[in-house]
Amino acid sequence: MVKPIIAITMGDPAGSGPEISLKALRNESVSSRARLILIGDMKVFKRALEIVGASGLSFLRITSPDQAMDTPKVINIIDLDNVDLAKLVYGKPSSLGGKAAYESIAQAVKYAMSGDVHAIVTAPISKESLNLAGYSYPGHTELLADLTGAKDVKMMLVAGAFKVSHVTTHVSLREALDLIKKERVLKTIELTYQSLFELFGMKEPKIAVSGLNPHAGEGGLFGDEEIKEIKPAIQEASSKGINVTGPYPPDTVFYRAYYNKQFDIVIAMYHDQGHIAMKMVGFMEGVNLSLGLPIIRVSPDHGTVWGKAGKGTGNESATLEAIKLAVELSNRKFRLC
Amino acid sequence: MVKPIIAITMGDPAGSGPEISLKALRNESVSSRARLILIGDMKVFKRALEIVGASGLSFLRITSPDQAMDTPKVINIIDLDNVDLAKLVYGKPSSLGGKAAYESIAQAVKYAMSGDVHAIVTAPISKESLNLAGYSYPGHTELLADLTGAKDVKMMLVAGAFKVSHVTTHVSLREALDLIKKERVLKTIELTYQSLFELFGMKEPKIAVSGLNPHAGEGGLFGDEEIKEIKPAIQEASSKGINVTGPYPPDTVFYRAYYNKQFDIVIAMYHDQGHIAMKMVGFMEGVNLSLGLPIIRVSPDHGTVWGKAGKGTGNESATLEAIKLAVELSNRKFRLC
Repeated sequence: MVKPIIAITMGDPAGSGPEISLKALRNESVSSRARLILIGDMKVFKRALEIVGASGLSFLRITSPDQAMDTPKVINIIDLDNVDLAKLVYGKPSSLGGKAAYESIAQAVKYAMSGDVHAIVTAPISKESLNLAGYSYPGHTELLADLTGAKDVKMMLVAGAFKVSHVTTHVSLREALDLIKKERVLKTIELTYQSLFELFGMKEPKIAVSGLNPHAGEGGLFGDEEIKEIKPAIQEASSKGINVTGPYPPDTVFYRAYYNKQFDIVIAMYHDQGHIAMKMVGFMEGVNLSLGLPIIRVSPDHGTVWGKAGKGTGNESATLEAIKLAVELSNRKFRLC
Repeated sequence: MVKPIIAITMGDPAGSGPEISLKALRNESVSSRARLILIGDMKVFKRALEIVGASGLSFLRITSPDQAMDTPKVINIIDLDNVDLAKLVYGKPSSLGGKAAYESIAQAVKYAMSGDVHAIVTAPISKESLNLAGYSYPGHTELLADLTGAKDVKMMLVAGAFKVSHVTTHVSLREALDLIKKERVLKTIELTYQSLFELFGMKEPKIAVSGLNPHAGEGGLFGDEEIKEIKPAIQEASSKGINVTGPYPPDTVFYRAYYNKQFDIVIAMYHDQGHIAMKMVGFMEGVNLSLGLPIIRVSPDHGTVWGKAGKGTGNESATLEAIKLAVELSNRKFRLC
């Protein structure tokens, strides 16, 4: 059995990311499934390992992914040697942190694009740090789109069988309303279908599309986006053979997917529609899969957790799930097992 | 012990409302707590009782609320005699249904305003029927505001200890964005506080206010309503002595209230923010309390359930909870026990 090679980025070195990643790597249920490679500054990871407890782990510095050892107790690392620990303050955004986080992502993407790693798992970054370092991106998604040349990237939240993808995400609600146009809804349906089919191996996934307005507009009484933009997109996707229905009232469609298993996924119109639904059923820290990138990219759906940085108390459960999902999707995409 | 007198409106006679109300009235855990009075057409209720099964119940026609008997097996009814059964078609909006539904509400409100009943519980109506009958209201709330002369009416969803009130409800999301202004947010906080204090008997309720945008705007990066409208409203309410905080990221504040019990209530900015949160934790059919009316008005938070009308299969659990809440709030407001 060939195990997938998964690159894990460092995230912001002043946040909890490095500690959380190492806590996840200590877990053999994850480390035994893949050849995992950390990409970032060795000093940052060494200190993080001291904080969370070594548990018999040791680092192996490698210079290319093919050198990665498949030994759970050995942590492969591509050492970018780009952080001055003396200048780094835990829990604070900084130019230094933003630059190092950026370089880790850029390197991971390079490996994924060239096929040297099968997937990447990204640790949390700080928009503020990125901006301080001169990289003006609202978040990972836009940065990854830029680095890979992808035009349309959408976010899917995954919690086992409960999945939600989003037409819009990190924009104001007012801007989201302006963005909800037929073409964008259609593109989201297509990317969602494609990922369920190719990555999740579903032969005919059932896709539900949420409305935007209360009661999905109640026939135009509470807004007409359902009639003008969403319904036409569903009809066009449907005419292409995709099993997609809606728009459904937003306050019940997630319930029907989660509790009644009526759909394999729900397409949410905006960030909180999907995120509230996901979090209220207990997935406080879910897993985020990027749709529309030429590479597999998964991440824990939480931020840098500034307040726990340096204390080793960040929760690794979402990172564990993210790595497991990256392994599962890599195995299927590359037919590794 | 004096039991409160609760008026229950008929709702649309072509919907499931009358059947659902009678199923609730069969339940002695409810009928033993109050003197319950149906207000509507006797013929409609008689037929509904035949459909759901009489279970030893019989009707008592009364002409004023003080005649209501306190006997669980007797259903008090103010007979408005305003529906021609031959013309009524189950599951369809009609002018006839809209007119009868309106008259039932108007009568119930009249009794509540004069103090002849302590609270009203409203069965579901159809906006379309109302409109066909010449009453142009988007729903109960606006109609009740008009009948009582109330200026600011807001909706609270109640599911035991989990409560959510709403700054906006039955308008398009675009219109909701235009309505979210400091004064309106402040008014919602005040009405919420007042109802928790007076009706629910909480000495110092902890009120959380949700943001509007993803991550509550992330410091202005994703919209500035939090900075310009919501925060100032919270500050002003706080300066008046109300224990209110926020704005919090919308995708975690409901979780914190429901699972972690950090707040007694969350104020949602728009319909689906609150409704998705409420429904995803299982309260598919919650209970709706109107804030800002001079009377106590509670209702099941579902529609006419057209598809089950005439079949007796509508679910009465939300109506049961609505009546129980009306009893609890009446007892406290009027110091009945």
